[in-house]
Amino acid sequence: MSISTSSLSVSKHVMPEDGVELLSSVEDLYGGVRVDMVESMDPKVFSTLLKASMSHWRQRGKKGIWIKLPIELANLVEAVVKEGFRYHHAEPDYLMLVCWIPDTIDTLPANASHRVGIGAFVVNDKREVLVVQETTGKFRGSGVWKLPTGVINEGEDIATAAVREVKEETGVETEFMEVLAYRQSHKSFFGKSDLFFVCLLKPHSFDIQKQDTEIEKAQWMPVEDYATQPFVQKSEIFKLIADVCLAKLDTDYAGFTLVPTTTSSGKPSYLFCNSRHLKFEPTSAI
Amino acid sequence: MSISTSSLSVSKHVMPEDGVELLSSVEDLYGGVRVDMVESMDPKVFSTLLKASMSHWRQRGKKGIWIKLPIELANLVEAVVKEGFRYHHAEPDYLMLVCWIPDTIDTLPANASHRVGIGAFVVNDKREVLVVQETTGKFRGSGVWKLPTGVINEGEDIATAAVREVKEETGVETEFMEVLAYRQSHKSFFGKSDLFFVCLLKPHSFDIQKQDTEIEKAQWMPVEDYATQPFVQKSEIFKLIADVCLAKLDTDYAGFTLVPTTTSSGKPSYLFCNSRHLKFEPTSAI
Repeated sequence: MSISTSSLSVSKHVMPEDGVELLSSVEDLYGGVRVDMVESMDPKVFSTLLKASMSHWRQRGKKGIWIKLPIELANLVEAVVKEGFRYHHAEPDYLMLVCWIPDTIDTLPANASHRVGIGAFVVNDKREVLVVQETTGKFRGSGVWKLPTGVINEGEDIATAAVREVKEETGVETEFMEVLAYRQSHKSFFGKSDLFFVCLLKPHSFDIQKQDTEIEKAQWMPVEDYATQPFVQKSEIFKLIADVCLAKLDTDYAGFTLVPTTTSSGKPSYLFCNSRHLKFEPTSAI
Repeated sequence: MSISTSSLSVSKHVMPEDGVELLSSVEDLYGGVRVDMVESMDPKVFSTLLKASMSHWRQRGKKGIWIKLPIELANLVEAVVKEGFRYHHAEPDYLMLVCWIPDTIDTLPANASHRVGIGAFVVNDKREVLVVQETTGKFRGSGVWKLPTGVINEGEDIATAAVREVKEETGVETEFMEVLAYRQSHKSFFGKSDLFFVCLLKPHSFDIQKQDTEIEKAQWMPVEDYATQPFVQKSEIFKLIADVCLAKLDTDYAGFTLVPTTTSSGKPSYLFCNSRHLKFEPTSAI
């Protein structure tokens, strides 16, 4: 169910087959074929090559056919759709289309399904929490004090994102300690789902330099004052998160800490877990 | 940083303005405009309307301009790109393009960044874990016994996905108990990131009916035999996950349980947290 390009076999650029020219393609590990279009081409010429290629792949029992079109080749999108392809995903500079040839059930991998956000619970030795008022969004002008929040960037670690957002919004330097809780919700954004991680951070500086564009005000506030705001008490989810934060301060609450590791293919990765009962030592230094 | 369509103000279908026809659009809450194309249109006519509309929006200080094109209107993609739009995201049946008009920094929300998967640790009263061998992928034919894994569907809860995958792959009925750990990794799939949640499930049935297409073999295996497989011991991440699973069986290890709640906009949602020190009762029934 995943696409690996690590061991693709590359075919010739334009392969003559029974005198017919075909699109340049590479085979994937799942019985499929991938076409990376790079150079511009007349849409009619492209359409003819695509038809011939589809016929060729069909005869050879190929399954998923992937065509990647850089945005500069937007004039070829129509021809691919006309051949029965659907959109798979898009990034700013390209569109990926896919077609499943066999009569069997389509086992093509799904598109990315979640956006990931963080909320930062930054608390100092005086039981004061770092809070902000935002200049946009639904709490604008409401006087509500919120934890700093943000969306993680493409390829960014959860812990890095939490430290970055606090620094950007308030100027405060922090260190990631642990994930206290997380929430999954659906249809939050163009029909996509959302994962929101509440992170405990330890402050290493205390002077606030608030960001001008997104943040109206920022301050250190007694944590009980934060938790007893009417908007927190009236909202099930905000109250629950505040309860978790207070439990961290007042009880033996154990969240998930960060254990550096590598994936089975050798890439650096992190496991978040309750490391209290494990033999290894967690890290906060990333 | 999020898009809400709940309070969009709808403009007329094709608005005459100084005698010039414009594309039908709605305003969003962030100073932007959204166009949902529905009916087919000649690309040249569309291009003329789009140019006039862009000029109109520019004069009025609009920021992000969103154009949604259903796949049936793939013939209009080129005209939108020529006006300076980039791709934002795509789903099987539509493509979303976006253009940021002002000279300021683009604050458009990012595309979904993560795919989410689950691994299921299903253990019975005899300390036996439910394991499988897969018919495809990199462990095919290796004799390696793995936990059942899978990718969560669009809009699916993590706990539901874990129960579903175990049922699909092995026929075993289970109940979600808690998330023991999770891993974030990057560039795992078309450059996207990946979140993988290791879930503890309690079996409610024990007879195995393995799925034919994806699963080669499935069985209950002593958990120590699973953990001591050379492939587990040699892989940092697999060993770490096995250590967490053993800690759950042999120590007081607390993962994150599921607390039902609602988001601030009233939608059902779940908070995953260590509920041991909180006053409320977690649920496994979803």
